[in-house]
Amino acid sequence: MDPDRDRSDEEPAEEWQRSDTSRLIAFSDAVFAIVITLLVLDLRTPEVGPGKLSRALFAQWPAYLAYLTSYLYVAVNWLNHKAAFRRVRCSERGLHWVNLAILFSTALVPFATAVVSRAVQLGSHADERTAVICYAGVGALLCLSWLYFAHYLGRHPELLEEGVEPSYFQSDRVRPMVGVVLYLVAGLIGVLVNIPAALAIFLVLPLFYGLTSNGLYDLRAVSRRRWIGR
Amino acid sequence: MDPDRDRSDEEPAEEWQRSDTSRLIAFSDAVFAIVITLLVLDLRTPEVGPGKLSRALFAQWPAYLAYLTSYLYVAVNWLNHKAAFRRVRCSERGLHWVNLAILFSTALVPFATAVVSRAVQLGSHADERTAVICYAGVGALLCLSWLYFAHYLGRHPELLEEGVEPSYFQSDRVRPMVGVVLYLVAGLIGVLVNIPAALAIFLVLPLFYGLTSNGLYDLRAVSRRRWIGR
Amino acid sequence: MDPDRDRSDEEPAEEWQRSDTSRLIAFSDAVFAIVITLLVLDLRTPEVGPGKLSRALFAQWPAYLAYLTSYLYVAVNWLNHKAAFRRVRCSERGLHWVNLAILFSTALVPFATAVVSRAVQLGSHADERTAVICYAGVGALLCLSWLYFAHYLGRHPELLEEGVEPSYFQSDRVRPMVGVVLYLVAGLIGVLVNIPAALAIFLVLPLFYGLTSNGLYDLRAVSRRRWIGR
Amino acid sequence: MDPDRDRSDEEPAEEWQRSDTSRLIAFSDAVFAIVITLLVLDLRTPEVGPGKLSRALFAQWPAYLAYLTSYLYVAVNWLNHKAAFRRVRCSERGLHWVNLAILFSTALVPFATAVVSRAVQLGSHADERTAVICYAGVGALLCLSWLYFAHYLGRHPELLEEGVEPSYFQSDRVRPMVGVVLYLVAGLIGVLVNIPAALAIFLVLPLFYGLTSNGLYDLRAVSRRRWIGR
Repeated sequence: MDPDRDRSDEEPAEEWQRSDTSRLIAFSDAVFAIVITLLVLDLRTPEVGPGKLSRALFAQWPAYLAYLTSYLYVAVNWLNHKAAFRRVRCSERGLHWVNLAILFSTALVPFATAVVSRAVQLGSHADERTAVICYAGVGALLCLSWLYFAHYLGRHPELLEEGVEPSYFQSDRVRPMVGVVLYLVAGLIGVLVNIPAALAIFLVLPLFYGLTSNGLYDLRAVSRRRWIGR
Repeated sequence: MDPDRDRSDEEPAEEWQRSDTSRLIAFSDAVFAIVITLLVLDLRTPEVGPGKLSRALFAQWPAYLAYLTSYLYVAVNWLNHKAAFRRVRCSERGLHWVNLAILFSTALVPFATAVVSRAVQLGSHADERTAVICYAGVGALLCLSWLYFAHYLGRHPELLEEGVEPSYFQSDRVRPMVGVVLYLVAGLIGVLVNIPAALAIFLVLPLFYGLTSNGLYDLRAVSRRRWIGR
Repeated sequence: MDPDRDRSDEEPAEEWQRSDTSRLIAFSDAVFAIVITLLVLDLRTPEVGPGKLSRALFAQWPAYLAYLTSYLYVAVNWLNHKAAFRRVRCSERGLHWVNLAILFSTALVPFATAVVSRAVQLGSHADERTAVICYAGVGALLCLSWLYFAHYLGRHPELLEEGVEPSYFQSDRVRPMVGVVLYLVAGLIGVLVNIPAALAIFLVLPLFYGLTSNGLYDLRAVSRRRWIGR
Repeated sequence: MDPDRDRSDEEPAEEWQRSDTSRLIAFSDAVFAIVITLLVLDLRTPEVGPGKLSRALFAQWPAYLAYLTSYLYVAVNWLNHKAAFRRVRCSERGLHWVNLAILFSTALVPFATAVVSRAVQLGSHADERTAVICYAGVGALLCLSWLYFAHYLGRHPELLEEGVEPSYFQSDRVRPMVGVVLYLVAGLIGVLVNIPAALAIFLVLPLFYGLTSNGLYDLRAVSRRRWIGR
């Protein structure tokens, strides 16, 4: 087996390692895509008597806003995931479970969204408070899993792409940390002050993350490398 | 880090950039696939008493027509997406959000379809008008996002594949522009003139786009290059 | 632009063409995966009063059988798709639409399955006949789209992988043709003779296709080439 | 055709074989992703009158626990699948059907989960027993399909990646065998002793498999090979 092993050292090693990250990414992409599309299932055709459709469609506005908010949130998570895994060379069991925790929390977003949407449409004030706490909890949980993700990669430089410093992920812990705090603050505001204010924070937060995400690719750098590389 | 960086310039740069478009494409493919399959969820087994199934299945004809229409519409969007991204070399944050806007609007198609299908089956004439406006609005929104997409790529030649002129996307703005107008016209016809005429336009529009889409690959050119390239 | 074009002839041409089939395949894989999983949504927790669960679960046996039948059917379609597209080098608009027609018919399978399953559980004899016709119709439609697929590729040798003769697809038209006939015969048997006999044919047909599918890879040939190729 | 064949021996053979496993993997990834996300559909917004939301959300705790349990279970199956297919070089019809059997059983998990979740919330003690048997049955079925998978690969060394001994899969039969036994024991415990004890086993089992899975990649080995390979 020794000669075989020697030969297999030359090409397959590269392929093995790449194939790993690629399945993790393909699986995550599919989960993100399903979650972002499941959100639309909460937009239901109103089951009302004849002649009442337009009013019923308008009365559903919290569902539309909830759809928009959660779509942005899941989209930002996907962009984050993409930006992060560009810096990851390969994966092992620990990272897989951290990633599965992120997907777990992401998959809860449509549920929390539906709870908020229904409470705003049909619930009492107490229900709205409950729903806001529920959404804030899922948001904070998702930020917590990103926090652990950054922490984990900061301590496993062997998993990172060449040229990526562990300090990148160490300092990247700030953003999810802020996210945890902001989701909890939004929940508190919803409970103590005002429901619409809390919902506005939920809507604005993904926009903020979308703008500060590492999803920006320094194209000039890529191009430069490309041409130099030739 | 300098020597590392130099080494990394030679191969990974190519891979980084390709990997980016590939995740955008994989994610979009999954969303399109889910949306096109979600449409079928609107085809429900009629919950009628014994002996009434065949009549109930026939009475659902608007749902079948709506399924066909929206299937064609989403299919054409996917073909468009594929044809467009063959001409895109790499992506950055802005293009990601434009793409996410397209997917957002696409994900609304099953909802609008269900609204139309239910209104035609159970609603009053006013409901049908509401539903037609709803579908026309989603159709126009989707065309608008494609319009912005073409506009964006026309102004970012650095994102395009080598040999693709920005003028390609600049002149490609005509098709989504016509689409916006036609969906709005169909909505107006539904409100002012006749519901079936509006629905017929909804059905015919994707067929028109399917035939004029850039999804046609000049195979001879590909083959020629291929053989020359060897 | 001429020198650029010359350079681009050397590598990208190959990539362009491959990328095309790859998106078609990725999209189809996703649709098949969603359809095969949607089937399970028809297995519902019985909503019965306390103490009646076990009886209600047993009473759902037609749903389990329908799930099994349709799972096999969609699985065979996926295997067929995979076996066919290994022989396809690249795609163009026509082939895309033929492929979309196959996916369209496949996506109808869960609907037809649910209709049969509900009719056998709750419907009258007339309902069962209707449901059998519905399933036979979807089955025949799917076979028809495969028939056209084989016909199309038999006439477009330029789309085929090197070394694949058009006659392969020309003679492969027999299997879907037999399928169309058998699904229609099963429908007739359901209407004229006996529902269980028709359902048995629905169950056996995918097994038959699974065994005769081109999904069998001549591994020895692959290995031989592999070692020679080195 | 002889010269063509000779030329095609050099590159495509490799690609053909890889392409095969890649579609099997892409399809399986999509199914796992859909199944793991379908689970969340069982978390429903409680349809209760105003002011009762928080109580209703708390009363749903079995659904949350069921979601967590089944999420872990499907996640472990995906990790297993990934670890196993890293050792598989190519696939043929038999392996495809074994894989489809695994996916079939996996797709039943959300159904069994929903049955347990509903029985614990609304059912009688007899219903809970029924539900536990149902979940144990699906769990055992899934382990059985993995057992056959390991058995199959142990007997088909020609499908394995170079350097992977058939004995790897032969000895890997122990884990699914233990799984079959443990799921059946949990079912018996649920019927004869105590429902919560059975549910606790269901929750702990995936954790156990997650820790013992072959999903651990010997990174040092990969790195070593990588650097040697250069």
